[in-house]
Amino acid sequence: MRILVGYDGSNQSKDALDLAKKHALAFGAKVYVVTSLFGDKQTMPQEIQEAEQGLEYAKKFMAEAGVSVETHLLIRGASPGEDLVQFAKDNQIDQIVVGVKKVSPVGKLIFGSTARHVILNAPCPVLTVK
Amino acid sequence: MRILVGYDGSNQSKDALDLAKKHALAFGAKVYVVTSLFGDKQTMPQEIQEAEQGLEYAKKFMAEAGVSVETHLLIRGASPGEDLVQFAKDNQIDQIVVGVKKVSPVGKLIFGSTARHVILNAPCPVLTVK
Repeated sequence: MRILVGYDGSNQSKDALDLAKKHALAFGAKVYVVTSLFGDKQTMPQEIQEAEQGLEYAKKFMAEAGVSVETHLLIRGASPGEDLVQFAKDNQIDQIVVGVKKVSPVGKLIFGSTARHVILNAPCPVLTVK
Repeated sequence: MRILVGYDGSNQSKDALDLAKKHALAFGAKVYVVTSLFGDKQTMPQEIQEAEQGLEYAKKFMAEAGVSVETHLLIRGASPGEDLVQFAKDNQIDQIVVGVKKVSPVGKLIFGSTARHVILNAPCPVLTVK
């Protein structure tokens, strides 16, 4: 079994990582941690460096729990939602874990666009974390 | 661990049932299958009978796989989304499984209102099935 987690370093995506770990241990699954940067002129070297550090953290987090893990930094001009769905299709992913929370300008909890896109377009079940 | 599944007899909710079974087996979890009817003057005896038959099917489905299961028919004037969230809160549920698919009048895949409400308001992670 293969579990994909969208990771952007936020607290919410750390919760997603933790949940993915628990599911990986229960199912004996391998975890794929993906960070997606859009990748245009505005993608700064610092942003890339931070993403790589985040993936190092995620890799260590899984490895220390005895979970088999791969990390991927995708910079290919796609939105995070598009990147996650494509990655899931390309890698026969069985379950995706994503954070769903986004707070609107008036403080209301709304769907993040990444979660919405992934839930509606993923080739597999999607586990959402708030 | 406790897994809640929203079940309305649709093919999509049968997929949710199947996924809940797999997760229950992996985690050694108990499954709560809930069917929600709004419960006003328009709730027909036949509708209630069909719901009860559906829950019997679900109970058998879980029991035959060796999964510990409870079924509940909720008719208390709440929407299915509200019923699922309240049930999850009242019963210390750790994960909810719901179908997400709804096809719009123009044939576009959109979020069902139940899934949307559950994802944004559940006290626990939500696994969505299409």
